[in-house]
Amino acid sequence: MDFSIGVDLGGTNLRIAAYSPASGVLEVISLPTRLASGSLAVVDDLCDGVQALIARHSDEYELSGIGIGLPGPLELPAGRVHSPPNLPGWDQFEFRREVEARIGRHVAIDKDANLAALAEAGLGLGFEMGVSSLCMLTLGTGIGNGIVLDGKVYHGAMGMAGEAGHLTIDPDGPVCGCKNTGCLEVFASATGVVRMAREAISKGAEGLGRLHDIDGGQFSARTVAEAAKGGDVDAQRIFETVGRSIGIGLAELVNTLNLPLYVIGGGLVAAWELFAPFALKELRARSYVYRLTEPGSAVGSAFSFGGTQVLPAKLGTDAGLLGACLLGMNEI
Amino acid sequence: MDFSIGVDLGGTNLRIAAYSPASGVLEVISLPTRLASGSLAVVDDLCDGVQALIARHSDEYELSGIGIGLPGPLELPAGRVHSPPNLPGWDQFEFRREVEARIGRHVAIDKDANLAALAEAGLGLGFEMGVSSLCMLTLGTGIGNGIVLDGKVYHGAMGMAGEAGHLTIDPDGPVCGCKNTGCLEVFASATGVVRMAREAISKGAEGLGRLHDIDGGQFSARTVAEAAKGGDVDAQRIFETVGRSIGIGLAELVNTLNLPLYVIGGGLVAAWELFAPFALKELRARSYVYRLTEPGSAVGSAFSFGGTQVLPAKLGTDAGLLGACLLGMNEI
Repeated sequence: MDFSIGVDLGGTNLRIAAYSPASGVLEVISLPTRLASGSLAVVDDLCDGVQALIARHSDEYELSGIGIGLPGPLELPAGRVHSPPNLPGWDQFEFRREVEARIGRHVAIDKDANLAALAEAGLGLGFEMGVSSLCMLTLGTGIGNGIVLDGKVYHGAMGMAGEAGHLTIDPDGPVCGCKNTGCLEVFASATGVVRMAREAISKGAEGLGRLHDIDGGQFSARTVAEAAKGGDVDAQRIFETVGRSIGIGLAELVNTLNLPLYVIGGGLVAAWELFAPFALKELRARSYVYRLTEPGSAVGSAFSFGGTQVLPAKLGTDAGLLGACLLGMNEI
Repeated sequence: MDFSIGVDLGGTNLRIAAYSPASGVLEVISLPTRLASGSLAVVDDLCDGVQALIARHSDEYELSGIGIGLPGPLELPAGRVHSPPNLPGWDQFEFRREVEARIGRHVAIDKDANLAALAEAGLGLGFEMGVSSLCMLTLGTGIGNGIVLDGKVYHGAMGMAGEAGHLTIDPDGPVCGCKNTGCLEVFASATGVVRMAREAISKGAEGLGRLHDIDGGQFSARTVAEAAKGGDVDAQRIFETVGRSIGIGLAELVNTLNLPLYVIGGGLVAAWELFAPFALKELRARSYVYRLTEPGSAVGSAFSFGGTQVLPAKLGTDAGLLGACLLGMNEI
């Protein structure tokens, strides 16, 4: 039987899994990402873990391949990273070359958000619905995006497709880390929610202000979501902005890609019921492709998947790691 | 030797061509589109023309297939049209079924803007640059959009991909024909240019006002472009808006698709030098994927095509017809 190694390299955690399609995840190694020790130290940790898992499972299984996900921007097929915001100091780092030199064999590399989308397609919502193409938005500290077409990650010409976190939602909006103004990420990431909450507090939002005083350094998007669920109108208004922004972003994606499935994942999806109604309302208003193809429409009903679906992710925080395992399996 | 039949069915003109890869276009039939006589009369004209060309060229050549382009929205593979703005009265029309019943064989059907993109890929800029993937915007009365990946039109799940003319550029902008507000089409089509010129006149733009009085019913985007080229500041400002809007739209497309080539075609491209500098400036400011991959960048230089290119179309108004001929050839 075959197995693969999947790696999810994040700015905080490094996770390495052994996976078999027949048995699922066999073992996971979790380590802190030693960013302060430099990129080569992180690659050493990564390769040590990969080799330990290969050694431990090669008696029982045969290795298909190794898949690694890391934060973008990632140039493919070179496997070179370019100014990744979550891996400071890694600009122009020859990631593929360093990993392959240590492991002594080819590794498949991809952006973490692409691998989360691949996992949703192969093991999550796409698998359940019987569709092999989808677009996923991961609402976390930033907003990740991955596009899967016919079961394969869509990379574009240079590996940099799927950056919908930086679609312009409001041309005159706040400045984003990417230097654009009014990106989706500014309005619909966890960071964006906290920023909008602080703005609301500075303008006199009392409920949020009290929570901020109580939570201190713990004040987070989760705090704001709980306030909204508890009826705080200022907090609810923030999630209306989250939803409307996602709706505008989805309208761009639906009009351009016309996929059967759009998946929303990441930590912020716990607040799905707070923002999703606004997102769908905005999407319907802004995309005539959506109106023509939404569930219940004449066109949508003509297809087995029932029309353009927008749904919360099924796989949780393991999506990226599972996608890396699938990528490794595809190396057969 | 092989030949194909290509049809470009527009709201005004119906053109039918016989084409051979070895000899190019062999013959073109041009007719008015008899919309007032109903959809079946138009299909009759179309099929009569197709059969006449097949009969005239079948002695010398062997027929590969028939390709037909028409305005969207078009549901594929059914070949059914849905509320097409340029074919009033055709909602839910079973175009494929009616054509195939008359001709007695399979026909390949696609949206006209997709076929213009296919022609630029196979015979125009893509062919020249050696790239087989591109995204094309056709700036005409409206804005058409087509995406070609690896030499084939990208359709999405239901045939409705490539509607970038309706990307939201300004969420609070003017109402578009698609019912959204602030679409690209509102700012960067010929219709949009005339609308902005009339607005400027109503606010006291004297030069444009004089031209409007002289031209009367002939006042068009071309008039505004000529005024801008002649130094009229109000007209130049309109093309700045055209360019900035295209730049925002391109930023969405570059961030999502990461293609090697974005082609701008249609009648308004005659004003390329008036709007392109603003478009590229806005694109650079809004898309970090573009900044990382533009010509001259580290990533861009690593690829044979030199990085993300934005260029005016090479093929003129025949692009859609040529693309239909290519589509017919692909039916082999």
